[in-house]
Amino acid sequence: MADAPLPPLDRIVETALYCDDLSRSRAFYIDILGFEPLLESARLLAVSVGGNSVLLLFQRGATNVPLPTAGGIVPPHGGTGIQHIAFAVADRIQLDAWAARFDQRGVAIESRVRWPRGGESIYIRDPDQHSIELITPGLWAIY
Amino acid sequence: MADAPLPPLDRIVETALYCDDLSRSRAFYIDILGFEPLLESARLLAVSVGGNSVLLLFQRGATNVPLPTAGGIVPPHGGTGIQHIAFAVADRIQLDAWAARFDQRGVAIESRVRWPRGGESIYIRDPDQHSIELITPGLWAIY
Repeated sequence: MADAPLPPLDRIVETALYCDDLSRSRAFYIDILGFEPLLESARLLAVSVGGNSVLLLFQRGATNVPLPTAGGIVPPHGGTGIQHIAFAVADRIQLDAWAARFDQRGVAIESRVRWPRGGESIYIRDPDQHSIELITPGLWAIY
Repeated sequence: MADAPLPPLDRIVETALYCDDLSRSRAFYIDILGFEPLLESARLLAVSVGGNSVLLLFQRGATNVPLPTAGGIVPPHGGTGIQHIAFAVADRIQLDAWAARFDQRGVAIESRVRWPRGGESIYIRDPDQHSIELITPGLWAIY
């Protein structure tokens, strides 16, 4: 059966990390990384991370049951373990500026990687040990 | 101490999900959702998801040790449990087209939610039960 072509899904608009202490996550993502808060509750800290997309920092355990809302039921989910996300940085000058900022703030740089296509990454840990990468263009064909 | 302003991090360029069977994930993300593969290995299926960003589908357990590369060491990570991501859909017409496609393909629509600001979501499950949302503009102030 040949399906009619559909308009492609546009992009990822929400990425979620599961965190043990949202006030600690707030200090990292807002005070150090510089993102803007969009919504704050005991269940969720949502931050605007550029590209018209949102990073959802969920209180671990708070999303394991369906959430009724006026407009319908939000299904349950709940991650554990150590996740990975990567943020875009324009170039190596900005990457170095971020590395210096992390030094000032006592955020350890766990690793630095140069990629075969060009592009360079630094890796840090968020307060939940999630592996956070800052990456310049050149790793991926599309970035 | 007042830190000098830094150029903001641009956006999320990599989002990761942890999956039990990458061939099953491939059937879902490439054959049903229509994304393009960028890299395929036993460890990782990377797909281009629009917005110059990448969804990393990691074989669960394959990323729990550091990965040496020619350019440096990629730190370990490894999520478990049920994660959540959301993809952007332009409008309700496209959302309905996707809902019809899911019906054709036997992908159950778990829930449909209308948001207070406008915007509407449908929720499905990927093969690992990750909660996948398709969402039209209007939930968030920035989308």
